[in-house]
Amino acid sequence: MSSVVPSTVATPAALRELLELADSGQLERLPDLVGDMHPSDIADLLASVPDEERQLLILKALPTDVGSETLAEMEEDEDRADLLTALSARRGAAMLHELADDDAADLLGELRPGDRDRMLAALPSREAGEIRELLQYAEETAGGLMTTSLVSVSALATAAEAIAAIREQGREVEQLYTVFVVDDRGRLRGTVALDRLILAEPEDKVGSLVVPALATVGPETDQEEVGRVMRRYDLVSLPVVDDRGVLLGRITVDDAIDAIEAETTEDILRLAGVSEEEELKAEWLESVRSRLPWLALNLVTAGLAASVILSFEELIREVTFLAFLMPVIAALGGNTGTQALAVTIRRIAVGDDVGRGHFQVVRKEVLVGLLNGLVLGVGFAAFAYLREGDPRIGMVVLLAMWINIVVAGFAGALIPTILQRVGVDPAVASSVFAHTLTDLVGFVLVLSLAAGLLL
Amino acid sequence: MSSVVPSTVATPAALRELLELADSGQLERLPDLVGDMHPSDIADLLASVPDEERQLLILKALPTDVGSETLAEMEEDEDRADLLTALSARRGAAMLHELADDDAADLLGELRPGDRDRMLAALPSREAGEIRELLQYAEETAGGLMTTSLVSVSALATAAEAIAAIREQGREVEQLYTVFVVDDRGRLRGTVALDRLILAEPEDKVGSLVVPALATVGPETDQEEVGRVMRRYDLVSLPVVDDRGVLLGRITVDDAIDAIEAETTEDILRLAGVSEEEELKAEWLESVRSRLPWLALNLVTAGLAASVILSFEELIREVTFLAFLMPVIAALGGNTGTQALAVTIRRIAVGDDVGRGHFQVVRKEVLVGLLNGLVLGVGFAAFAYLREGDPRIGMVVLLAMWINIVVAGFAGALIPTILQRVGVDPAVASSVFAHTLTDLVGFVLVLSLAAGLLL
Repeated sequence: MSSVVPSTVATPAALRELLELADSGQLERLPDLVGDMHPSDIADLLASVPDEERQLLILKALPTDVGSETLAEMEEDEDRADLLTALSARRGAAMLHELADDDAADLLGELRPGDRDRMLAALPSREAGEIRELLQYAEETAGGLMTTSLVSVSALATAAEAIAAIREQGREVEQLYTVFVVDDRGRLRGTVALDRLILAEPEDKVGSLVVPALATVGPETDQEEVGRVMRRYDLVSLPVVDDRGVLLGRITVDDAIDAIEAETTEDILRLAGVSEEEELKAEWLESVRSRLPWLALNLVTAGLAASVILSFEELIREVTFLAFLMPVIAALGGNTGTQALAVTIRRIAVGDDVGRGHFQVVRKEVLVGLLNGLVLGVGFAAFAYLREGDPRIGMVVLLAMWINIVVAGFAGALIPTILQRVGVDPAVASSVFAHTLTDLVGFVLVLSLAAGLLL
Repeated sequence: MSSVVPSTVATPAALRELLELADSGQLERLPDLVGDMHPSDIADLLASVPDEERQLLILKALPTDVGSETLAEMEEDEDRADLLTALSARRGAAMLHELADDDAADLLGELRPGDRDRMLAALPSREAGEIRELLQYAEETAGGLMTTSLVSVSALATAAEAIAAIREQGREVEQLYTVFVVDDRGRLRGTVALDRLILAEPEDKVGSLVVPALATVGPETDQEEVGRVMRRYDLVSLPVVDDRGVLLGRITVDDAIDAIEAETTEDILRLAGVSEEEELKAEWLESVRSRLPWLALNLVTAGLAASVILSFEELIREVTFLAFLMPVIAALGGNTGTQALAVTIRRIAVGDDVGRGHFQVVRKEVLVGLLNGLVLGVGFAAFAYLREGDPRIGMVVLLAMWINIVVAGFAGALIPTILQRVGVDPAVASSVFAHTLTDLVGFVLVLSLAAGLLL
């Protein structure tokens, strides 16, 4: 690995050292150990400490500002809510006070309502009010991602006045790359990047430097859309406005990256039949809860698809070779369906087609299936003919394989496209539909072709 | 959709209008149509124009700076290389000249060597030299992502001098959020964010404002690692240094997001058995090329796994119900394996575990499999018993389903973990291994348990 990270990184050795400090009651030496570590690294260390009691001891031994950033960098599934809850209201509020409002709101949003109110009551009332405002937005929306901490100026201001505004409003603002320009009603007029401000003459009017916002979102916009817009327009800061165009806050690119990562993880896991609730680090019982319903559904659908076999027991007794053919032909249909599903779902997620009909994708998958199915069908039919010495078996194999693969490509592209159209997440349910269909069609084709051609 | 994009966006209507202009020879009116569109939107429009001849006409009718950004925003699989190649060297070089060096290098890297040299020869020699330097790095490395366009100052400079340096070096620098601080040998000392510079007093020394870089990467670092580091430390700009610490360039967050997106798409498609070469917008014949080898491999492995059935033809003739059981039990094993694979591969990709043994994941999947397998096995066994009226059939079903699901969870977690350890992309080959195994184990269990218990 040629990556060089100058700050001390979280390593198993650092974890051992940390645990030794905690167990030997020498946590006053903790600041030396984590001295120039990034809060992300401390968060990983803390999350790796096996029990909550020691985690809490360590958290309390960190300086307040470091501890609060560490909590902010921990993942939701790493029990940070429990840690915060275990603190006194005064201590918890002191930590929240150190954080940007969006991070504080994210943390508070994970607490039980009673604990949340207890912490909010211990915060200065203006700060508590700002955080309450943010808490009203759903977590996975633009409102849930945004911070209200930003610098805004009037278009009538000069560059020098804008710089003065940064000195005044900007001391506490993190990730400050852009100044927002608003009119006298607070409506967004555009943005000025800091470098353009530095390059300007002091007496230049902000109105002459402002660039219209490439994109804005409403507070209810889904985080998936937020990620897409910021990626599309290469934004580091996306303004959030209400329906009258009034600037409510901004989303910084680091939060957008986290949102993209979360949405993608959700898509991959859903495609594989793991419900969105399973976090990557879930305990095993949570994983059972998250996966068993899907598997049970699959048992029912796979059982129903295979039950067609039960109507052909006589035929199978006659031609036992069919018991070998069916799972192979169903498996290839399943694989083809998975390929078409993955390409289609990813296409929808990345989503920047224009003018190209969605149904062209379906047409393409059918073409791909026609050729792939023919090649695989001929190959497998040749094997079946050579083994069984009956050209009619070869014909059954060729037709069943070929048709099933075309159906699989068609269904794999069509199902997510339709789900998307009707507003259902295409990653959720596509694969169970597609696989049940390819199983069923595979079995029916093999059995009915064999019944027709062989008996 | 509550997203508001003020600039005219690419729509099917805009595409129709564009095609009308092109076909009626009125392309001189093109700048009106695309007037305040973002190059990303124009790129989508251009990519949706059905034939290359018209694409080229439209590209030539765009102002040079707009045309060049449009090419830069097109995807590699949208034939932008062909468009650039079709331009004269003078015209092509004029476009490249308008671009940031990393974008110009990306474009040139897609041309055939002869065309590339023709374009480079038409560029000013210093610019050509810079681009040649970037071209030596592989596309998916930090060197391939970085730009050499940045602002650097000495630690001995004052804030006022640093601002003067921005005026001097920074006019052409895009996405300028940070000034890099270097020593007299060009080695990176740290960074100063622009807002800190604005907040400083003019006579403050840069040395007192500088913050050590949270992370640096070498030019050979893989883009996946680049994305991970920038996400981890919330960076908008990541310095690339050589092994002596000399600053070579920087990677901006927009390129890191594109890299994350590309790596994720690769993972999802590989997991589904689509080779990385298939771009989402590939023509159907390319898709056949990308998918057929995988399907053929699957035909062989599925055939081998199922061939065990051929040794039990006598048994199947006796108990045709087994022909129904086998595909269902294999399917549930396959689903369980897919769940474990997806969770494990995603975990590896997001990768921020510390101290937690990789093999704990395997242990967890075995536990999950033990419980899920028991529940599903009991359910399906009850069905089988009720239908066939033979408790021994119920026992066959219970044991086969249970063991196969445990094996599937075990393999689904172990295979990618091992592949990762030995340096193979876990997404590439995991699913074929896992599914062959669960098919084989499923068939063998059903058949040998049935042979033992029923005959």
